[in-house]
Amino acid sequence: MAGKSYAIIMAGGKGERFWPLSTSKHPKQVLSLVGGKPLLVLAVERLKGLIPPGRILVITSKDLVKVTAKTVPALPKENIIGEPFGRDTAAVCALASGIIKARDPNGLFCVLTADHVITDITKFQQNINDSLHLAATADILITIGIKPTFPSTGFGYIETGNVIKAAGKTTFLKALRFVEKPDKKQAEKYIVSGNFCWNSGMFVCSVTSMQNALARHAPQLLKMANRMEKAAGTNHFNSILANEYSKLEKISFDYAVMEKSDNIIMAKASFKWDDVGSWTALENHFTKDNNGNVIVGISEILDSFSNIVVSNDRLTALLGVRDLVVVQAEDATLVCHKDKAQEVKKMVQLLMKNRKYKSLL
Amino acid sequence: MAGKSYAIIMAGGKGERFWPLSTSKHPKQVLSLVGGKPLLVLAVERLKGLIPPGRILVITSKDLVKVTAKTVPALPKENIIGEPFGRDTAAVCALASGIIKARDPNGLFCVLTADHVITDITKFQQNINDSLHLAATADILITIGIKPTFPSTGFGYIETGNVIKAAGKTTFLKALRFVEKPDKKQAEKYIVSGNFCWNSGMFVCSVTSMQNALARHAPQLLKMANRMEKAAGTNHFNSILANEYSKLEKISFDYAVMEKSDNIIMAKASFKWDDVGSWTALENHFTKDNNGNVIVGISEILDSFSNIVVSNDRLTALLGVRDLVVVQAEDATLVCHKDKAQEVKKMVQLLMKNRKYKSLL
Repeated sequence: MAGKSYAIIMAGGKGERFWPLSTSKHPKQVLSLVGGKPLLVLAVERLKGLIPPGRILVITSKDLVKVTAKTVPALPKENIIGEPFGRDTAAVCALASGIIKARDPNGLFCVLTADHVITDITKFQQNINDSLHLAATADILITIGIKPTFPSTGFGYIETGNVIKAAGKTTFLKALRFVEKPDKKQAEKYIVSGNFCWNSGMFVCSVTSMQNALARHAPQLLKMANRMEKAAGTNHFNSILANEYSKLEKISFDYAVMEKSDNIIMAKASFKWDDVGSWTALENHFTKDNNGNVIVGISEILDSFSNIVVSNDRLTALLGVRDLVVVQAEDATLVCHKDKAQEVKKMVQLLMKNRKYKSLL
Repeated sequence: MAGKSYAIIMAGGKGERFWPLSTSKHPKQVLSLVGGKPLLVLAVERLKGLIPPGRILVITSKDLVKVTAKTVPALPKENIIGEPFGRDTAAVCALASGIIKARDPNGLFCVLTADHVITDITKFQQNINDSLHLAATADILITIGIKPTFPSTGFGYIETGNVIKAAGKTTFLKALRFVEKPDKKQAEKYIVSGNFCWNSGMFVCSVTSMQNALARHAPQLLKMANRMEKAAGTNHFNSILANEYSKLEKISFDYAVMEKSDNIIMAKASFKWDDVGSWTALENHFTKDNNGNVIVGISEILDSFSNIVVSNDRLTALLGVRDLVVVQAEDATLVCHKDKAQEVKKMVQLLMKNRKYKSLL
């Protein structure tokens, strides 16, 4: 008999690429960057009717448990899990399997993130629901692939083989291999071939399949999962987690497990999807003015083209500039060329070296 | 017998090109843009030992009398004159001649502005002192010309003739004609010819010579000067001034008088001079970092070149940008291409159309 369905929302990133709005105390996932609500709230709301709040778990960092709980008050407090430090997605998946197994050994779960913008909620729920049903039937891991709309060099890709099944309204294909973010030329080849999808980082499986995969490819992680299964619901949970995490290497689930497995199925998403990875992602979610500028907040613009401005509290005035990201936060303003939006992290790292900027980070 | 020497400092501009730091309530001349002190304070301090505070008059706009008096508390309050509205420099010169004549009919005066940066104070005082002495001897108007250091298209020029006299440490030449701001090609010709100096907008004359010139070329202004001479020191001064000003056209002294006169002598300045006309002028007065950036205040910069940042209260972070002016003021931030620094006025005019920005202007 198939178990109940759970959702794991990964919300542990620091969101440094969204500095100066995103700070360690008020990170990206609790900001209303797009859609008028915090990304995490949108991620939870997307599950409405599919998975009840009591079975939605958010995995974030220890320091963010409070602000996260405040952001999604509909979730039970015990469903907000704080990692003592980041050990990447492989640890998150293993931990999730342990916690869910403690509640339901036959459980199924989807792993989602708070960074995604998905507006076709009905289609999203159909794909996830079909995947959960399929995951209950076999020892497989299902990854969600996105039909690429342009040769992105910012996403990883999944090469697909034959169609395995069209279950419900979702098409499932054999996933042949995972490829890292390609260069432009390679990305263009992928698009032309038609056999490649973007790797969304979302996937669906049963607790059993997850733990089978861990046993095969990452036994250390399975040990951790088993210990955390026992610790679940006890007062020692956090101290045991800290001890277990300290023994782990930092590795992504794709790298630790997915790439080594031959039982991966790709569900082809029928919804539109975007990863809100850096300031330039805002261009996909706001209407531009006649000169290609995206303006969020208070801004006046003269002779300026293709800029992104976020200025919630104070006026930002642009005169004769193009291709900039300008973000005015409470205590700091960023002026960045769009081409460098991925490198805002570097700025944050520079600022970290100077104690006087601590309160800004 | 020659009369006493006075100085008139024109400090009436709105300084719109220095928005958002310069606002109607806190304009350019009271800001510490360069030299660590407000421009007006520097202008007054430059006269120390040459002209006593009691004979230094500041002509500003009515609304700015209070903030001006507060900025230069060493000057007697009655020496801060507030114009009801701007009527350009011809009106200022005529008004000055009337006020000074009321104090000393044989008076001499220099007309200076608060916008200039002059660091060789000794040489400046020598040139002004020599000019005041010469002005006492004949019916002449003396304009201060600056030896050009590059083919500027931002200044007017004075074409010079023969050397008339080397009095004290100053060379005086016949001024042949005034020319408006030239284009680049013309400016280059001027530099090559060696017979052109920048028109600094400073000049020196006696009350008598000034009023003789007004009688010849601008009799309307002389009438105003005579009325204001009588009103000087009375309680009706401001109301009479408002009435007189309302009858005047807006015209510069160069255009109304200098260009029409044949008794103009140019004193060749031996000091270095700069007009602080827009944000880009800051490049002449601050040390640049290795990448050509000028930073005033709190800023961190990565992969960015040739920018000007003014950020007194909050951090400004630049990443991957070049040739920008970024000014973070209390309630607004400007991001402007250097080539558009002269057009900041246009931004101010745009903002004026929207009442919600009133407090920012």
